[in-house]
Formats: sequence, C-alpha cells, structure tokens
Amino acid sequence: MAMKLLLIGFGHVGQELAGIMILNKSEYPGLRNFDPVISQIISPTRGSISDPSHEDIRRIIGGHNPKQRTGYSDLADFKDFAVRKIRESNYDVLVELSPLSISENGDPAVTYVREALMRGKHVVTANKGPVAFAHEELHDLALKNGAKFLFESTVMDGAPVFNMTRETLKGCRIHQISGILNSTTTFILSSLEQGASFDEAVREAQGAGFTESDPANDIEGWDAAAKITVLANALLDARMTPFDVRRRGIRDITQDMVREALENKSHIRLVARARNESGRVTATVGPEKIPEHHHFSGIRGTGACLRIETDLMTPLMITQESPTLSDTAFGVIGDLLTISQFLKP
Amino acid sequence: MAMKLLLIGFGHVGQELAGIMILNKSEYPGLRNFDPVISQIISPTRGSISDPSHEDIRRIIGGHNPKQRTGYSDLADFKDFAVRKIRESNYDVLVELSPLSISENGDPAVTYVREALMRGKHVVTANKGPVAFAHEELHDLALKNGAKFLFESTVMDGAPVFNMTRETLKGCRIHQISGILNSTTTFILSSLEQGASFDEAVREAQGAGFTESDPANDIEGWDAAAKITVLANALLDARMTPFDVRRRGIRDITQDMVREALENKSHIRLVARARNESGRVTATVGPEKIPEHHHFSGIRGTGACLRIETDLMTPLMITQESPTLSDTAFGVIGDLLTISQFLKP
Repeated sequence: MAMKLLLIGFGHVGQELAGIMILNKSEYPGLRNFDPVISQIISPTRGSISDPSHEDIRRIIGGHNPKQRTGYSDLADFKDFAVRKIRESNYDVLVELSPLSISENGDPAVTYVREALMRGKHVVTANKGPVAFAHEELHDLALKNGAKFLFESTVMDGAPVFNMTRETLKGCRIHQISGILNSTTTFILSSLEQGASFDEAVREAQGAGFTESDPANDIEGWDAAAKITVLANALLDARMTPFDVRRRGIRDITQDMVREALENKSHIRLVARARNESGRVTATVGPEKIPEHHHFSGIRGTGACLRIETDLMTPLMITQESPTLSDTAFGVIGDLLTISQFLKP
Repeated sequence: MAMKLLLIGFGHVGQELAGIMILNKSEYPGLRNFDPVISQIISPTRGSISDPSHEDIRRIIGGHNPKQRTGYSDLADFKDFAVRKIRESNYDVLVELSPLSISENGDPAVTYVREALMRGKHVVTANKGPVAFAHEELHDLALKNGAKFLFESTVMDGAPVFNMTRETLKGCRIHQISGILNSTTTFILSSLEQGASFDEAVREAQGAGFTESDPANDIEGWDAAAKITVLANALLDARMTPFDVRRRGIRDITQDMVREALENKSHIRLVARARNESGRVTATVGPEKIPEHHHFSGIRGTGACLRIETDLMTPLMITQESPTLSDTAFGVIGDLLTISQFLKP
C-alpha cells in the first residue's frame, strides 16, 4: 500500500527527496519495496499542490508550479494555511522540511508537528526546531497517539545517529556525547590555518555554498547548539533548549591563535558536547584545541563526527566523510522506511 | 520472565559476560530490565555445571568448578557431550563462545549452532566460524524455525556493525565495505615504524596480550579474512568462506618498506575489503599504504574501523577507540537484549 506524504517546505532537501524516492526511484535497488506517494506539497515560496504528477514535481523543481493554489498572501497566512492542511488533509506521514528558527523557539515547525501528532499522523522532520525546543511534549504526544516521531536527518544527515543508538545501544548508559557537527566552522577554521583572514574565510565558505547568506547561525554556534540539544534531548532525556547550552562561537578566533595551535600540533575546531553526570545533563559548544592525532582532527570539508562514551563500551565514533543533500534526503527516507514497517498493509 | 542461557565455552569472554550481566549487573543501569539466567555452562577445560549459583560462577572464574561433572574425557568426547546438552537441555538461547577453527571449517561451532536452531532455540555467537562458513544455511534454518541467529560481537566487538546496518541502512545498497579489523597486525606494523624488527614486534604483541600464543592466524591474515567473510556473507549475501578471500598476510613486510611509506607520509596497514560489483562479491585482505590523512591511519592499539560505501550516502565510518573484553561481552549482551524483545513475557 502506498504511503501518502504531506510535505511542508520544498527547498533543496525536499527537491532532492522527491528526486530520489519518486522521480528516479528505479535507480536505487534498496528502495524497490518502498512505495511513497507525495499527496501534497505546501511551500511558502513555491505554492501548494495536491496529488502532483511526476511532471508536476519536475516543473516545481524547475521553478514553475503548474497548479499553484496558494490561499495565503504572507508568512503569517502561510502558517494558518499549513495548519489547516495538516488538520484536514488525507495523508499518512507529515514530512516537515521547513528551516530552523531559533528566535521563534522552533516555530512554526513545532506547531506543524504537534498538529499532525494530535491526529495520530506519523511525523518525519529534517528540522532541528521541534526536537530542540519541544522534544518531551512531542515524544509523549506521539506515544499517546500511537504515532512515530522521527528526525534522523537533523544531526549528521542520514548517518544513523538516533536509530543506531535506539536500536543497538539499548543496554548502555551514555555518559558523554561530543562531536564536530557544524561544517561551516570547520571550513572557516581550516581556511584560517591556510592563511585566510576571518572575513575572507567567511566569504569563501559562502562562495562554496556551505552557509546561508547570513552565516551567523553557524559562526555564533547556534547551529551546533541546536544539534547538541537535539542529541541531549533524544538520547539523554535532557529536556533542554538551545538557550540552555553554554555556547561560544568562533568569531574571536584569530589567525594567530590558529597558527599557535598548529605549531603545537593541534587544530582549533568547534566542538559540541553533552555530558550526563548522575542524571544531570549539561551541554556546551565552543572552540577547542584538538591534538593532531585525535579523531576529530581528521574531519574535513562537510565531514562530521560523533563520539559516544558509554558505561559498557570503549568510545564509539560515527564519521561521515563528505555528505551532500542526498545524505540529508536519505535520513528522511530511512525514517520513512521505518514508518512503512508500522503501517498496516 | 528470566531468559535461560546455555553457554558453550567459558574463557575470557564468557567470564566477562557472566561478570557484567550476572555478578555485577546492578552496576549497569541500562541492564535494569534485562533478566538473564545461566542455566548451564559447558566448557572443554572448566567442566560442565547446571544452574550455577553466583557463588558457583565466582568459583569457576577463580579456576575451581565446585560441581564439575564432565561426562567427557577428550575433545572429541566433548563435542558429543555438548551436542547432547544442546539437544536435550532446557534453555532459551545458546550462547556460543568457542574459538574459531579455520582448519575445521568453523566446526564444532557450526554443529552447535545448527543443533540449537533445529530445535528453534535462539543463538548468539561471538565465534566467527558459523557465519564465515555456513551463514546461508544457518540463516535460513533460523528463519524456518522462528529463531534468531545473531553475531554482533564477531566483528568489532560490541560496535553495532550488523545491527546498525540491518536497522538503519535498509534503503541503501552497499557497494563496498573496508576496514582495519585485526589489531595484532596494527600493533606489529606500528612497532616496525618505531624501529622494532618483525620478530621483536611479534614478541611485543604477545607480551601485550594482543595475540594467541601462535599469532599465525593474525599475521597470515586469517582472522581478518574470517571477519571480512562474516561481513560479506551477512551484509552482501556473498555466500563465501574465508578460503575464497584473496589473502596476503604481513609476514613479508620489512622495516625498510614501513620506513619508505612513512617518508611518503603513509602507513602500511592490513586492510580487509569486500566489494559488490553488480551482485558479484569479492573479498581481499592485504597490506596497503594508507595516506596519513586517511581515516584508517588514525587507528591505534586495539582500535578498529569499518568504512561502508553505499549508493545513497557519503561513506560512513564506525570506529572504536580501544576495545577490551567488556566490549566483546557487550556485543553478546546487545544481541541477548534484541532476543529478549522477542521472547514472550
């Protein structure tokens, strides 16, 4: 039986997702038994469309929505419109792909997810907001209504951070999670090492397509703070928000500091940590000197790494080499595959 | 309901396992809801005992079996005795912990596992033999009889190689698996880099407790070949044995070769690979020059690393820093936790 998806947001990730699982599905043998259907796309910039054909999806990706019916004139209207659709449409899974808003405490995504879960609809989100700001509420709501609430792609794209930990580290108690989770800062700090000034490094990162036009979320450590909050809430039951993270960005890191570190055979990198000390969870984000031989020193480009310390195992690390949009899309697909096992045939 | 275990073999791993999950269970909060009972221990060297108390287990670990009833006089007898126990005893899970035998095509472990699965008993093994020599048969037998056949600790101890891939990479097609999987050779090659001769390096490895008294299985690449076969059979449906692996050990690696590699900013390491080319799976084990910045170059001591290349994601790596016996034991416990979810309450 086809699994009907309602997509909110249709930017880079949504388009890649539609490309892999709808338009080019036959190229991926592992998806043979996976039968998703996009029953609705709702985008603040690309309009809204129901039951799009392959040709419709191709046109929307090309920038032209053939059957655009907006029903909204600005972003406030859009939220009301989206909530109405989430409440009234016929679908199996809400796929929430809108961007993170720190200043709005994760909204409107938190609202979208809540509305879907209240109807007992499954939710997959690539947006850190709902888990960073409302994990406990949404997790409980999902349980109560027999729905799945999955978010694998919020940290390290498709790398199986949450699913692996849930499925395979059950008997362990996690003491600490740490990682290099924000690639813009890795890129900027590497550029400083190669002699660029801070402003040049930021411009390079923007030129390479690493950052949003405003890279402040990365540079100030907000993106990393949201990610470590997602990890702390989901894996350590921390019940915190990104505002609880002791956070330092890389704005005051100079070429001199980077060079001095290099002379001492280390690299300055933005490290995110969450510690569980007797049930009290604290989280930090900040630049640290990483010795050359440490695993984190090997992370380059868009690469990312997570180190998990437990009571029963030697530290375990998950590393992804150089993820692209396809990795983020796979994170969503992995969650959809998990849900498809729970849907009745 | 308690889960009754029949243990075959009670060496280092078995003793560590009993220590964690029976004697010292209260120290591990993640095991709170896990209720295993050792209903029988059968060991060729430590005798056999039914329903051992905590005190009995402590005594056996101390080298003294208080109720030793062997019923066998040599190893051939032991196999018959063990098979009889597997056929007739009352237990839920066979925990197979006997050592790998390449020359016997994985036996007697293959026989033990087969006998248990034929009765519909679940099996967890830390022995590479059954998966390296008879994966297809045993996997099918388990399916047919509604039993689980799990072997997480055969490769990289408790690191969730098989469970992660099964649970989280479902939609991907794996193209290649490669890794640094044998720590004795890493140790020896590192010692050569530091100026030791080959024989000195082997003696150092033996002194450090890395190897068996006969390190040939490691040096000739048999251990790595068995591991890559387990991976290829379980994850790529390869249906091969370790004899099908194109295998080269490190016996002919000299200090000069290692030094020349270092001058070219690389390290010689024993790499195991399995490739899936349009459904045809091939596997190799052999020394390779690894550039300094490659992830594999960072593996030290007992550390291990696996790199998984798929059609939908950037290469993913799982690394464990410096596993000990407790990691191997956790691999077994993780599998037992998986099975405990399937046992009726």
